[in-house]
Amino acid sequence: MSVVVQNIERANAGTIEALGKCGVATVHEAMGRKGLMTPNMRPVWSGPRLAASAVTISSPPGDNWMLHVAIEQLHAGDILVLAPTSPCSDGYFGDLLATSAMARGALGLVIDAGVRDVVELREMGFAVWSTAISAQGTVKETLGSVNVPIVCAGVAVNAGDIIVADEDGVCVVPRLEAETVLEKAQARAANEEAKRQRFAKGELGLDMYDMRGRLSAKGLRYV
Amino acid sequence: MSVVVQNIERANAGTIEALGKCGVATVHEAMGRKGLMTPNMRPVWSGPRLAASAVTISSPPGDNWMLHVAIEQLHAGDILVLAPTSPCSDGYFGDLLATSAMARGALGLVIDAGVRDVVELREMGFAVWSTAISAQGTVKETLGSVNVPIVCAGVAVNAGDIIVADEDGVCVVPRLEAETVLEKAQARAANEEAKRQRFAKGELGLDMYDMRGRLSAKGLRYV
Amino acid sequence: MSVVVQNIERANAGTIEALGKCGVATVHEAMGRKGLMTPNMRPVWSGPRLAASAVTISSPPGDNWMLHVAIEQLHAGDILVLAPTSPCSDGYFGDLLATSAMARGALGLVIDAGVRDVVELREMGFAVWSTAISAQGTVKETLGSVNVPIVCAGVAVNAGDIIVADEDGVCVVPRLEAETVLEKAQARAANEEAKRQRFAKGELGLDMYDMRGRLSAKGLRYV
Amino acid sequence: MSVVVQNIERANAGTIEALGKCGVATVHEAMGRKGLMTPNMRPVWSGPRLAASAVTISSPPGDNWMLHVAIEQLHAGDILVLAPTSPCSDGYFGDLLATSAMARGALGLVIDAGVRDVVELREMGFAVWSTAISAQGTVKETLGSVNVPIVCAGVAVNAGDIIVADEDGVCVVPRLEAETVLEKAQARAANEEAKRQRFAKGELGLDMYDMRGRLSAKGLRYV
Amino acid sequence: MSVVVQNIERANAGTIEALGKCGVATVHEAMGRKGLMTPNMRPVWSGPRLAASAVTISSPPGDNWMLHVAIEQLHAGDILVLAPTSPCSDGYFGDLLATSAMARGALGLVIDAGVRDVVELREMGFAVWSTAISAQGTVKETLGSVNVPIVCAGVAVNAGDIIVADEDGVCVVPRLEAETVLEKAQARAANEEAKRQRFAKGELGLDMYDMRGRLSAKGLRYV
Amino acid sequence: MSVVVQNIERANAGTIEALGKCGVATVHEAMGRKGLMTPNMRPVWSGPRLAASAVTISSPPGDNWMLHVAIEQLHAGDILVLAPTSPCSDGYFGDLLATSAMARGALGLVIDAGVRDVVELREMGFAVWSTAISAQGTVKETLGSVNVPIVCAGVAVNAGDIIVADEDGVCVVPRLEAETVLEKAQARAANEEAKRQRFAKGELGLDMYDMRGRLSAKGLRYV
Repeated sequence: MSVVVQNIERANAGTIEALGKCGVATVHEAMGRKGLMTPNMRPVWSGPRLAASAVTISSPPGDNWMLHVAIEQLHAGDILVLAPTSPCSDGYFGDLLATSAMARGALGLVIDAGVRDVVELREMGFAVWSTAISAQGTVKETLGSVNVPIVCAGVAVNAGDIIVADEDGVCVVPRLEAETVLEKAQARAANEEAKRQRFAKGELGLDMYDMRGRLSAKGLRYV
Repeated sequence: MSVVVQNIERANAGTIEALGKCGVATVHEAMGRKGLMTPNMRPVWSGPRLAASAVTISSPPGDNWMLHVAIEQLHAGDILVLAPTSPCSDGYFGDLLATSAMARGALGLVIDAGVRDVVELREMGFAVWSTAISAQGTVKETLGSVNVPIVCAGVAVNAGDIIVADEDGVCVVPRLEAETVLEKAQARAANEEAKRQRFAKGELGLDMYDMRGRLSAKGLRYV
Repeated sequence: MSVVVQNIERANAGTIEALGKCGVATVHEAMGRKGLMTPNMRPVWSGPRLAASAVTISSPPGDNWMLHVAIEQLHAGDILVLAPTSPCSDGYFGDLLATSAMARGALGLVIDAGVRDVVELREMGFAVWSTAISAQGTVKETLGSVNVPIVCAGVAVNAGDIIVADEDGVCVVPRLEAETVLEKAQARAANEEAKRQRFAKGELGLDMYDMRGRLSAKGLRYV
Repeated sequence: MSVVVQNIERANAGTIEALGKCGVATVHEAMGRKGLMTPNMRPVWSGPRLAASAVTISSPPGDNWMLHVAIEQLHAGDILVLAPTSPCSDGYFGDLLATSAMARGALGLVIDAGVRDVVELREMGFAVWSTAISAQGTVKETLGSVNVPIVCAGVAVNAGDIIVADEDGVCVVPRLEAETVLEKAQARAANEEAKRQRFAKGELGLDMYDMRGRLSAKGLRYV
Repeated sequence: MSVVVQNIERANAGTIEALGKCGVATVHEAMGRKGLMTPNMRPVWSGPRLAASAVTISSPPGDNWMLHVAIEQLHAGDILVLAPTSPCSDGYFGDLLATSAMARGALGLVIDAGVRDVVELREMGFAVWSTAISAQGTVKETLGSVNVPIVCAGVAVNAGDIIVADEDGVCVVPRLEAETVLEKAQARAANEEAKRQRFAKGELGLDMYDMRGRLSAKGLRYV
Repeated sequence: MSVVVQNIERANAGTIEALGKCGVATVHEAMGRKGLMTPNMRPVWSGPRLAASAVTISSPPGDNWMLHVAIEQLHAGDILVLAPTSPCSDGYFGDLLATSAMARGALGLVIDAGVRDVVELREMGFAVWSTAISAQGTVKETLGSVNVPIVCAGVAVNAGDIIVADEDGVCVVPRLEAETVLEKAQARAANEEAKRQRFAKGELGLDMYDMRGRLSAKGLRYV
């Protein structure tokens, strides 16, 4: 029942990097407003913005043994994504594990649970999104699995999916949709820049999107 | 049922500015401890402090159409105040709408829901207090109303009321009470400065407020 | 029923200071993973790290009278620890009380309720951990107690216990265990530095902790 | 600042009773989907269903003094509606106050806080909707107000407004809208009965509401 | 993007019925402790216990249009499973939709959002598990999808998966695992009955499971 | 570190039984409004009311091994009181453990975590107060302690303390205070009956407690 899937497929590194430049809000829109984790998934320090390839972990509550197992599976450019098998706020991860993960080339961690050593993580520049900050220690007694499908903060994640994350939250792009989503996201970003300039000059969304007729037809009255 | 009230009254600009200088805690005390939004209403970036005149918005969950309608109603010095008609954490507002609102002279947004593009909002200096940060997109399908009475994060807000907001939270001053509240707040601020100096010299509140007799009468025992 | 215990014992100042240097996560581990407050107890500004001797306060909801009583009991190097007698998010404490507590030599406050004037607290360098930020004012009508045993954010605290707090949270070390815990914490910190260097060179936890055999025996399969 | 408004206007008793028969969901729809309290406002025992005229109370956290003041203002057919001035779960109300309120002809209580003696309240048939059940006692030290405008569980309530409440929650009908809302609610109820019979025979909403064309136009695809 | 998948596979009806008899706790254990929804997913009335085949719905917040579309896809013995695309507590479902779903042979609803008309649902015997009870109405403006993969209350659900639900919560059995899980669940249930009888006679788990040696080896001390 | 304290002192059985008759609200008042657990500690079925002697358990998250150890320590009239070492909603306890505990004479369980098999627990008449209902299974891998001091739902509990619990919640009476509290509680109960009769006849609290003068002195105005 407890397995480590060793050979997983990853998306093209250039595609991943380009998705990271688009940012979460744009990528999420480009995907048809899917794939966003719940809003309690927050960065533990301000500033990180990345895209990376997911190594997934399913762990029991209060047990971080599988993180050690997962770190061996990391490639450069990967991100750890951990979901506990039941709700838990314990601190599964701190500066020692971050040091180990960075030595393997990992870029960060997304965890539907807690982390600790947040000052050190910030100083190391190791990007972490979590649903709690807690010094509460964990044990290494019960197995879980690595690189199996998980549900993390409301979103299904498969190993090799692309995680796009910044201060707006965390979005999951299925590996096979990466190219298509990137194309749409880049088109959207270009389009937004044009809109931004028109808005900055004082043009109203009501006019830019030609909304007045539809608002009136729906029954909006000005008094 | 869905209306836009176009001509609203606003408080005197000097009064509004002066309230902003007093800060939330002082204004809230000066009002008799009324008008404070619930503590989950937080600034999305650190540092903003303002007072501004409210343009109110009532919006369906997951639908930000009325924000476009409301932006047309903004005057310089206004702030948007949005309450969804049922609990919602979606990202109603981001950098494009902020660009549009700033072009109209708006100072910020108070929203009992989510916003996105928080890095860009911070860089633009557009002040936002919200109850969530979420990249989750919204639709433009269902009408709401603008400049009608709303309840936002536990407080009744009317268009033209003064919003005072800083890192302690958000307080609402009814437009017709603005002058009275300002007077009391300024008196309180002056009084606090004198107290601060006495406290800094080591004087105890027990003595400054002459509490010892009343504590003893209520039955406090020292052991 | 309402008492102020005046003569409390405190741990050795050097021991307290040394615990502060170890940090919350290390001290919590050294104690056998006990004594950590719930994760919603957070610093109101980023950066503080301290250890201090607890002056405890039991207060009614929405009533901060006992803070004035407690401040008289403060010695240099103390920290106020307040638990309301029922759940409350009101702002019990602000810059005036902080000025008074600092004049007595106090280092900070831990409160299972709200505080206000957070900008001023940050500027003053007065360290505060709280479960809420709220400008909501309190009254001075009902007695509580000072330096009695309390439960704060899930942990039992006695006057004179050592509070260790940083960005990972707040941990309580019973006064009589302080020396033993310090010894274990320092040993642990030294040990961690050695591990950090090995992790940084790419050694895996699987090998460093000799986990492979036990994982296999428990049934972990690599596929 | 602390006032008791003694002479308040109430809606017609027959109108109130008729609204109660319509139930919360129907009345809420008839009002244009306004006036519903947040979903954490729940009945403390199963079964109650009523409409009644509001006597409003604004009370400090952990202080139920104003309930005694409010009970004197009750008329037969009234309901007490209490909002604390900051979030509080204490047990403001129990079987003694219920006995007193029943003796005045009151039908129930809606409270954005806690109550106790729930077994006795059920046995007495005194209807209570609350956001908490807690035996935590309260004091009688600080004034509030009676029959002033309040915000209770997200909804503005004025004295004399009609409270409609059942197992689906609590809805507030402004006094001056009572007749209009009743008319719409009754029309809606009649209409629903007809629909129910058609649904029971197997007719689909897709056909009954003629939705297929609009779904197709919006882009729904069957695969 | 918005699709209705019409032809879905369902598990064997006898297998489904047999899983229902095992109950949630047993089935969840038989699956290796997977598939359980979060504990805030609760029955709206006491007593229901079933297993049924899932018809899945992905809906926007505050929009129940897709429920009408989904009802047409129901077969006898099915259960509706709805996940909103962002957190929402609105009342998507009430007695009219229940009447329609029952007319199609559906057994119930699992929804990570709100329902209303709970008295009527109980009287009708229509089983509902939800994360909220709310009379808040919804609109019919924005498309979603039917019978696509969803994540509901933390668990991935595919159309045709078996939902096992009772007062302990809701568990999802993947369709292709149904036979295997049933076998294990039935074995487990038989085994539990034997244990129950031994426990009832006073035998201790310490002896029945031969735990004493292992506890001692781990270091448990009796004092 | 992990210990089982075998010989604990218990209060007089008659005292315990008499406290149970007083009920939670009365006992809590008689103690000076101390000792009440947080309001999310609720009975899993309606009706139970008891007082019993605590056998305490400190358990890791998601690990129920210590329950088996604790059951051996039960005497007739005891109640299990479990606090996890970090927040956890897993189902630690079900009908098998209840069967075992009942065979030892235990009356119930208070747990700051989850339980399962709630239908069976109700049928067996085994009283349970918990903060969650969840079928989520637990492991038996990590030690905890039995009959050590714990903090459960915000209250410090020692082995042998008296747990008083009903539908209003759970209150903890320190063993050595049991006689004094009982005396005060019985006096209070007698006093309440007299008040109830006066309230039932229409006498107002304002008059019964002679509040009018004090209200007026504090500044209450009737308008």
